[in-house]
Amino acid sequence: MALPEPNGPDANAAAAVQELMGGKFGEMSTLMNYTFQSFNFRGREKLRPYFDLISNIAAEEYSHIELVSATINLLLSGVTKRSDRNTSKNPKASPLDAAKDARNSYHYLASGQGSLAMDSMGNPWTGANVFSSGNLKLDLLHNFFLECGARANKIRVYEMVSDPCARAMVGFLLVRGGVHIVAYARALEKLTGADVGKLLPIPDVCNRKFPEAAIHEKKGIHRIMYRWSPDDYSQLDQVWNGKHPEDGGDLIVSDETPEGAPWPEFDEEPQLSSPGGIDPDMLKHYAKILK
Amino acid sequence: MALPEPNGPDANAAAAVQELMGGKFGEMSTLMNYTFQSFNFRGREKLRPYFDLISNIAAEEYSHIELVSATINLLLSGVTKRSDRNTSKNPKASPLDAAKDARNSYHYLASGQGSLAMDSMGNPWTGANVFSSGNLKLDLLHNFFLECGARANKIRVYEMVSDPCARAMVGFLLVRGGVHIVAYARALEKLTGADVGKLLPIPDVCNRKFPEAAIHEKKGIHRIMYRWSPDDYSQLDQVWNGKHPEDGGDLIVSDETPEGAPWPEFDEEPQLSSPGGIDPDMLKHYAKILK
Amino acid sequence: MALPEPNGPDANAAAAVQELMGGKFGEMSTLMNYTFQSFNFRGREKLRPYFDLISNIAAEEYSHIELVSATINLLLSGVTKRSDRNTSKNPKASPLDAAKDARNSYHYLASGQGSLAMDSMGNPWTGANVFSSGNLKLDLLHNFFLECGARANKIRVYEMVSDPCARAMVGFLLVRGGVHIVAYARALEKLTGADVGKLLPIPDVCNRKFPEAAIHEKKGIHRIMYRWSPDDYSQLDQVWNGKHPEDGGDLIVSDETPEGAPWPEFDEEPQLSSPGGIDPDMLKHYAKILK
Amino acid sequence: MALPEPNGPDANAAAAVQELMGGKFGEMSTLMNYTFQSFNFRGREKLRPYFDLISNIAAEEYSHIELVSATINLLLSGVTKRSDRNTSKNPKASPLDAAKDARNSYHYLASGQGSLAMDSMGNPWTGANVFSSGNLKLDLLHNFFLECGARANKIRVYEMVSDPCARAMVGFLLVRGGVHIVAYARALEKLTGADVGKLLPIPDVCNRKFPEAAIHEKKGIHRIMYRWSPDDYSQLDQVWNGKHPEDGGDLIVSDETPEGAPWPEFDEEPQLSSPGGIDPDMLKHYAKILK
Amino acid sequence: MALPEPNGPDANAAAAVQELMGGKFGEMSTLMNYTFQSFNFRGREKLRPYFDLISNIAAEEYSHIELVSATINLLLSGVTKRSDRNTSKNPKASPLDAAKDARNSYHYLASGQGSLAMDSMGNPWTGANVFSSGNLKLDLLHNFFLECGARANKIRVYEMVSDPCARAMVGFLLVRGGVHIVAYARALEKLTGADVGKLLPIPDVCNRKFPEAAIHEKKGIHRIMYRWSPDDYSQLDQVWNGKHPEDGGDLIVSDETPEGAPWPEFDEEPQLSSPGGIDPDMLKHYAKILK
Amino acid sequence: MALPEPNGPDANAAAAVQELMGGKFGEMSTLMNYTFQSFNFRGREKLRPYFDLISNIAAEEYSHIELVSATINLLLSGVTKRSDRNTSKNPKASPLDAAKDARNSYHYLASGQGSLAMDSMGNPWTGANVFSSGNLKLDLLHNFFLECGARANKIRVYEMVSDPCARAMVGFLLVRGGVHIVAYARALEKLTGADVGKLLPIPDVCNRKFPEAAIHEKKGIHRIMYRWSPDDYSQLDQVWNGKHPEDGGDLIVSDETPEGAPWPEFDEEPQLSSPGGIDPDMLKHYAKILK
Repeated sequence: MALPEPNGPDANAAAAVQELMGGKFGEMSTLMNYTFQSFNFRGREKLRPYFDLISNIAAEEYSHIELVSATINLLLSGVTKRSDRNTSKNPKASPLDAAKDARNSYHYLASGQGSLAMDSMGNPWTGANVFSSGNLKLDLLHNFFLECGARANKIRVYEMVSDPCARAMVGFLLVRGGVHIVAYARALEKLTGADVGKLLPIPDVCNRKFPEAAIHEKKGIHRIMYRWSPDDYSQLDQVWNGKHPEDGGDLIVSDETPEGAPWPEFDEEPQLSSPGGIDPDMLKHYAKILK
Repeated sequence: MALPEPNGPDANAAAAVQELMGGKFGEMSTLMNYTFQSFNFRGREKLRPYFDLISNIAAEEYSHIELVSATINLLLSGVTKRSDRNTSKNPKASPLDAAKDARNSYHYLASGQGSLAMDSMGNPWTGANVFSSGNLKLDLLHNFFLECGARANKIRVYEMVSDPCARAMVGFLLVRGGVHIVAYARALEKLTGADVGKLLPIPDVCNRKFPEAAIHEKKGIHRIMYRWSPDDYSQLDQVWNGKHPEDGGDLIVSDETPEGAPWPEFDEEPQLSSPGGIDPDMLKHYAKILK
Repeated sequence: MALPEPNGPDANAAAAVQELMGGKFGEMSTLMNYTFQSFNFRGREKLRPYFDLISNIAAEEYSHIELVSATINLLLSGVTKRSDRNTSKNPKASPLDAAKDARNSYHYLASGQGSLAMDSMGNPWTGANVFSSGNLKLDLLHNFFLECGARANKIRVYEMVSDPCARAMVGFLLVRGGVHIVAYARALEKLTGADVGKLLPIPDVCNRKFPEAAIHEKKGIHRIMYRWSPDDYSQLDQVWNGKHPEDGGDLIVSDETPEGAPWPEFDEEPQLSSPGGIDPDMLKHYAKILK
Repeated sequence: MALPEPNGPDANAAAAVQELMGGKFGEMSTLMNYTFQSFNFRGREKLRPYFDLISNIAAEEYSHIELVSATINLLLSGVTKRSDRNTSKNPKASPLDAAKDARNSYHYLASGQGSLAMDSMGNPWTGANVFSSGNLKLDLLHNFFLECGARANKIRVYEMVSDPCARAMVGFLLVRGGVHIVAYARALEKLTGADVGKLLPIPDVCNRKFPEAAIHEKKGIHRIMYRWSPDDYSQLDQVWNGKHPEDGGDLIVSDETPEGAPWPEFDEEPQLSSPGGIDPDMLKHYAKILK
Repeated sequence: MALPEPNGPDANAAAAVQELMGGKFGEMSTLMNYTFQSFNFRGREKLRPYFDLISNIAAEEYSHIELVSATINLLLSGVTKRSDRNTSKNPKASPLDAAKDARNSYHYLASGQGSLAMDSMGNPWTGANVFSSGNLKLDLLHNFFLECGARANKIRVYEMVSDPCARAMVGFLLVRGGVHIVAYARALEKLTGADVGKLLPIPDVCNRKFPEAAIHEKKGIHRIMYRWSPDDYSQLDQVWNGKHPEDGGDLIVSDETPEGAPWPEFDEEPQLSSPGGIDPDMLKHYAKILK
Repeated sequence: MALPEPNGPDANAAAAVQELMGGKFGEMSTLMNYTFQSFNFRGREKLRPYFDLISNIAAEEYSHIELVSATINLLLSGVTKRSDRNTSKNPKASPLDAAKDARNSYHYLASGQGSLAMDSMGNPWTGANVFSSGNLKLDLLHNFFLECGARANKIRVYEMVSDPCARAMVGFLLVRGGVHIVAYARALEKLTGADVGKLLPIPDVCNRKFPEAAIHEKKGIHRIMYRWSPDDYSQLDQVWNGKHPEDGGDLIVSDETPEGAPWPEFDEEPQLSSPGGIDPDMLKHYAKILK
């Protein structure tokens, strides 16, 4: 998904979006939960469709941390005044002035105005967020809850940040996260017969109420499970089938994965020496003599 | 790389190997450091070879957390007595007896004898382990140090655990981690002209002293940088070229990635309800009525 | 105690009050310290009055976390704009705007504008705050210090927040916490003969200087130990007797506990789906069919 | 419930049982989750039965941390050699010898062989374990998951520790926790119509397989919701009604709460100065002169 | 070094400066890393010059935490309104008003407007920041990286805070920290022959670009290693010799340590009872009777 | 104080002693508490004797972390089998075997069998242990409690570890810590007139019951306050005067500080590459060419 340019730099919006990266319900949590559950799966052959489902969703989550990171970086680009002390004429300049009152000081001290593995309060993501009990039903229930909690966080960040870049990202993740919610619901249903899908939506607002999500739902993206490794995850469709619990459309496994968007370029921030004043001639020089 | 079977279950060996997963210098740290640095790279076009290098190494690290996880799971398999309370005749049985004195109780309480995102003392991995300053030279120096620290930990786990499964894993990672050490040394050299490679090896023992690493070095694997995405990382060879600082052999970029090994099967541990006593007939029943 | 309505919503006042909930010296700490010390008491029969004292104070602390929570919730009510995306006509609305710059983002992301088990910086309360050494004199000394530290925090929150709801809560807790300070001083005196009460007040300001505390002291509430379980804590008066060290009035054990105040109603915050748009007809429907 | 005497002191059993106290799924978590959700409930009048349910369960949890604490304390009593340095003739004695190799050193250094607010690895309980989103459906789903996770932990501690005192405690908590699982399932069903109860049991073993739980189920205790404050929680029966999902028996609200068991006495551990060598004559002396 | 008076109180500047105290790369980290490495040095006699170097730098770091603390305290002095509730006529006063919106509430709740062992986000310094592997080359590499990371943080705080007191402190520490960077580079060079100094400066700005650092470099202070204990650290000059890698000047060991500056007086903050309203007559009274 | 050689290596004794280093009541806590309180002192001139007392005790604490570290290092020396993979003939050797079952794996993975900034469970020391409220009476009360808590921990480590090296260290620290307890008691007495010393000893065992403490008390060391900086701390004797509360002897300020003991040599542990196999000829070579 291609992210639109933000309306402008917004330090505290970037701080808020960090919740979707390194919060308890952020994308690092979904990524790492499914990764460990996939690694640790016992009795895989007997329960192959479930292994395939969890592993396949893990694979998709990687692109989600990427997307959240790009959003944060775009919102942070230009927050402080671009200037280079190596060439500046003003020794009294304090180009990071604006950072002093920003909510998250790590963005300026520990990174070059970039995303970090932390939440909206600057607390680091922790491995304690990974749940991998080894009991399939319990792990699936956890995942269903985790995705609903993640959905609540996404909606709240959406309501907090009006920037179009952030909202485009949230809109897309609401739809893809929605697929995962339904997937774990289906998995529990297939295991037990309980109609878990009737609990949805949690919280009590439909994705269609968010314009940036609605455009994807119109294309049916909320009903598609992309198969990220067609050779490996062949039994996905034993879980991902039937009707979508909210709109009744068909659930589809697709071997075509969505085309990637170009990764945005992030401008230099020389006041942070990011990436640093590297002399191209020197680079060429060393490239030659060291090759 | 295919892991040999362990000599037998070994609870405290598994606990020690967790350091290579979730320790400050574990594979989660290398994976996440390079991932965030890749995401946050500013001024990418000017410094493409460095971006490619960091991103490409990030891609390889994913397979390393997988390998460490598999080792832990194999060492934990069978640590406690397999039995199923649903069918057991002995209500007084305490099949997890052996877990009571094991160093890491989370392996039995929080997981089904599986790996978790924690270190050898059961402390969770933390996002505070991610360093992504945005200054290229500083990030590269960090990475060089991180890989050397990781190497020290690998060697110490090797000297602590004699099990062949664990040692095969460590031997392989010493070689691949060694590639990353040299890569970051090269990158620093290309940026500045300093002969960082002369610092190696850190610590002061060669990989060749470890038989399980030596077999890979004999095949030259310590001189090969695999390109995990040939379309994306085309400028790798502007950094990864010249001679290996320890043995003087040629540094090679390879577009052929190594063949994956079959992922080991992990037996059920019914005393932990892992994966749980799911009735195949019921599964079929629900599969039919819910499709 | 009945809380007055706040003058209006105040996000950062609520953030400050969290220190009295989940700070190192917050009410969760006093509650849990005395609870564990009561649970762990060894040699209870020999030292019954001390057991009774600690247990009885633990019982009172529960109502204190309740009161702090209510204050936080009242201050947070209405901080962001009430609106419901399900019925809103404005897809561009960002009702949580005001939350973006608030000091504590968890109030909006992790809760529905409600209190959490954290302090004024959003750091979670931790069990490491519990001290229960098992040595009675040391535990009592700890408790005396803990209550004085808690008093300092209350006074500082009072000086930081002028809202009448917050100040009414602090005023009341200064008085009740003052009872606990004197109680632990008395207990140490009874054990050793040292005149610990001469250290008071810590810090060096009397409760009477705070109008919202003075109104309770005028009623003598600072000299009353309520017995929360008359059957159990019969030997309270062997410690709680004699004169108050600051005003010389009689210390009294009372079997009548104070009348509870009505628990305030907290209005819905639909922009947070809190509690969520639940359809009363549906509730009735399911109530009927499921009964 | 009256706890039987343990077969003898067992340091590592006590360490394991700590998971049920201060683990992520321990009783402190259930207690504090429901307490905060009850405090923070918005729109209470509209949704009274749900408020009553959560608040009432919170009230019961307090007795559960008490029970887990008592079990730990009993298992720790006598772990190290009882002796008193004040009267000992042997200056070379090291009565805490046995503690040096015990898994959890805090039991001997930070407490007087008593329970602390930590888990089986000695990590402190944290307020980050509290989930209180303010969205009713999401909070109920969380609670349902939390109780299932707690059940998994109880079963695993049961399988790890064969001591009859520990197993009696776990057996009882399996039954009462089972009531809470069903209660949250019912609440979700009443809100949405989904038949959540069909997911049970999670994990896939019935309480009846554990003799110490079976004795309580035979008395029907798994179908009784005790009303801990008859005046307050009058609408409990609008959720807790109908049939138990596992055995089909009637769900009953009872205004009679179970008779409490006598709280066990914990012997002194003089080698830890717990409670300390207090001279009864001195106590009397100070009691007289200070009254 | 004598600190100039700040231009005025600045709460958020003080919060930012905390990163240099208790951040991962703050002065507590440098102090404690070298202290532990010095304590733990194995094979000291063989490698005396390196032991002397690390120990001597540890000794200097103590004065650095002192300097950072003084800066924070000066910036915090007067942030809130000075007043004394004991003598105030206005019961409605809320003198800490200004603290409610400050980024770091601990400065007002946990301290009397003073420095604490925490970073710019209020997260406490942790012993996990100490690296002491016991392998000399690895420890030196770590220290070289740590000092470069610390330098990046200092520069960023400089660019964020224009106050002359803060900048004077940072300027001085850039120079002294620069000495440590070169020292660890030299130590690695002496051990291996690698020309590590060619990597400098990291980040890519010279100290001379900062006027408050340039004044010290003009005096050659960046080339002087003070010997803090002439009797103990006699072999310092075996590492600290040769030319400075950036300006080619001679590296000098000096047995004269710089003259200390008078420690600034910090005014009372009576609104925080800091230090508290102590009556001088009472002090004299007790001094007399207790002597 | 000169430490005797341990009876032999003892991994778990070293793990226990870590509590006295990095535990909540360890020497890092006492050092850092008094250091920050000294740094942050407001109104120093008015209250000079108290400033001098706190600062002077801070100075002494540095030698205490040194002593605890040396004890840990001595106990760890030789725990695992000394061998050097560079010269070993046995590729199957696992010299760290003994470390696999040791309680604290960080001693072998993160350090070269050396002390770290952590407690007996391997949890890192944290800046949250620093209390510096700025209110003098409260800080002194805290310090009095902290020292009593530290005393309890020392006694318990003594009773846990019979090794003469550990006991010599504890015996000495009991005496010096005892001086600090009395000092803070005196300070509170001078401020308020309360006879705090009557609370002692806490816990209820005298230092004289520990032979390794008794030898120091016989020399009167428990009554001497060493003045670590005679020029600075000139008013110490306004607090430290009168009679010792336990034995009635005179309290003395001494300008002669105790003679330091030789710092023990710690042997190399080549199996950990600690300090690493550095070639002396190479060192000489680089020393020559780089000078």
